[in-house]
Amino acid sequence: MPIREMVESYPKDRGGIDRDALVACIEACLECTQSCTACADACLSEDGVAELRTCIRSNLDCSDICATTANVLSRHTGYDANLTRSVLDACRVACRSCGDECGQHAEMHDHCRVCAETCRRCEQACARLIDSL
Amino acid sequence: MPIREMVESYPKDRGGIDRDALVACIEACLECTQSCTACADACLSEDGVAELRTCIRSNLDCSDICATTANVLSRHTGYDANLTRSVLDACRVACRSCGDECGQHAEMHDHCRVCAETCRRCEQACARLIDSL
Amino acid sequence: MPIREMVESYPKDRGGIDRDALVACIEACLECTQSCTACADACLSEDGVAELRTCIRSNLDCSDICATTANVLSRHTGYDANLTRSVLDACRVACRSCGDECGQHAEMHDHCRVCAETCRRCEQACARLIDSL
Amino acid sequence: MPIREMVESYPKDRGGIDRDALVACIEACLECTQSCTACADACLSEDGVAELRTCIRSNLDCSDICATTANVLSRHTGYDANLTRSVLDACRVACRSCGDECGQHAEMHDHCRVCAETCRRCEQACARLIDSL
Repeated sequence: MPIREMVESYPKDRGGIDRDALVACIEACLECTQSCTACADACLSEDGVAELRTCIRSNLDCSDICATTANVLSRHTGYDANLTRSVLDACRVACRSCGDECGQHAEMHDHCRVCAETCRRCEQACARLIDSL
Repeated sequence: MPIREMVESYPKDRGGIDRDALVACIEACLECTQSCTACADACLSEDGVAELRTCIRSNLDCSDICATTANVLSRHTGYDANLTRSVLDACRVACRSCGDECGQHAEMHDHCRVCAETCRRCEQACARLIDSL
Repeated sequence: MPIREMVESYPKDRGGIDRDALVACIEACLECTQSCTACADACLSEDGVAELRTCIRSNLDCSDICATTANVLSRHTGYDANLTRSVLDACRVACRSCGDECGQHAEMHDHCRVCAETCRRCEQACARLIDSL
Repeated sequence: MPIREMVESYPKDRGGIDRDALVACIEACLECTQSCTACADACLSEDGVAELRTCIRSNLDCSDICATTANVLSRHTGYDANLTRSVLDACRVACRSCGDECGQHAEMHDHCRVCAETCRRCEQACARLIDSL
């Protein structure tokens, strides 16, 4: 994915945000929005769907929030640290919550195992970017 | 819009969230995501687009965040107050920032005036729902 | 919702698109994205969730497509009739499919009954706008 | 990105859709939604923003449509070939239109050059998946 190329081709100052942490976080958000959408759908098809209701709901929220976070982080014009921090914080909370929930089904369902890992990676990428702001 | 009907037809407990504040906030988020998308596009077509760069960027972020917030608030299964609060907080920050930015162009551009008003309404609706959690 | 005000405040030509059909379609898409998100979540909480898998999946697709359609229709700059028609066509297909699916559960579940109605309204609003292009 | 792992961990039949074409198309859509959001923002910051209005608008539409397409393709439950085809068709049209527009600025702006390439890749990935349905 040409995320780094896109970040580097921005023609003006990027507001002093850490470039490596930014690229890593955008990639983690894209990865996580996809795995959460896919995990929600895989849970929905499991025979034990009734046990996976909270997992599906967490997946759907986390997917929406990660997609929005990837968008916000892909914009640099008129950079607003306050807004960036609030969005990253919501994303971190969503990823932790969804990672915990998926983690509980990781031994039963491979999609939950993979999705729990992408949630953890995204949670950490958000935390690292927040620290660098 | 049948937002209230949809909220009331949820078959289980909604986690004790205030129903009127919830319905008002979902509606305000939908209204705000639309007016921000439309305002970004109207700003883009103005002769003075170069002066409206920050406004367009704020509009795009606010639109994305309001759409995600409307989705999160439309789900009740496995209600998570911590996540709801974080998302509402990001939405409030985005609406305040975008409302302030649009407010600066309200006398020049009617789309900025209307959009500033929907941002303020959405900011207040988020604040009221946060208070009720 | 100030959809009409936002459409009318656009500073340049809107490409000859029928204004009333446009406003009605944007509103129908916003209504439908919300009711589909809410219906997916309500289905998820039903005791008979296992019978509602296809309904939940249709709801999630329809919600995403309606949200994107509302965004595309809220932009007028560099109007592209070909793109508008393709997006409206996908939205019409999604609304018909989801309306049919929800319609099968309308007697059992009030959320499916209300959602089937918003899907039908949105399908018709898309069809009317396509005819006017 | 664990797109392939997520596709393969789906517990039921995926409706006979070509697995390699599906994985490639989801990845191309995620790549394209990001580069289009970033390109819109980079165009917005260019000194010559007034010449890039149509490019920004194409970018925003293409980003929304690619994100929705990635979501629809990440779901397999209750597979609906008719809906999948309509969404892929809208995505192909959006990518072609945006790729053409960005291509016109590719020599001037590196972000437009990179984005034109991701649009072409996504257009081709959609076409290949449509052919395989």
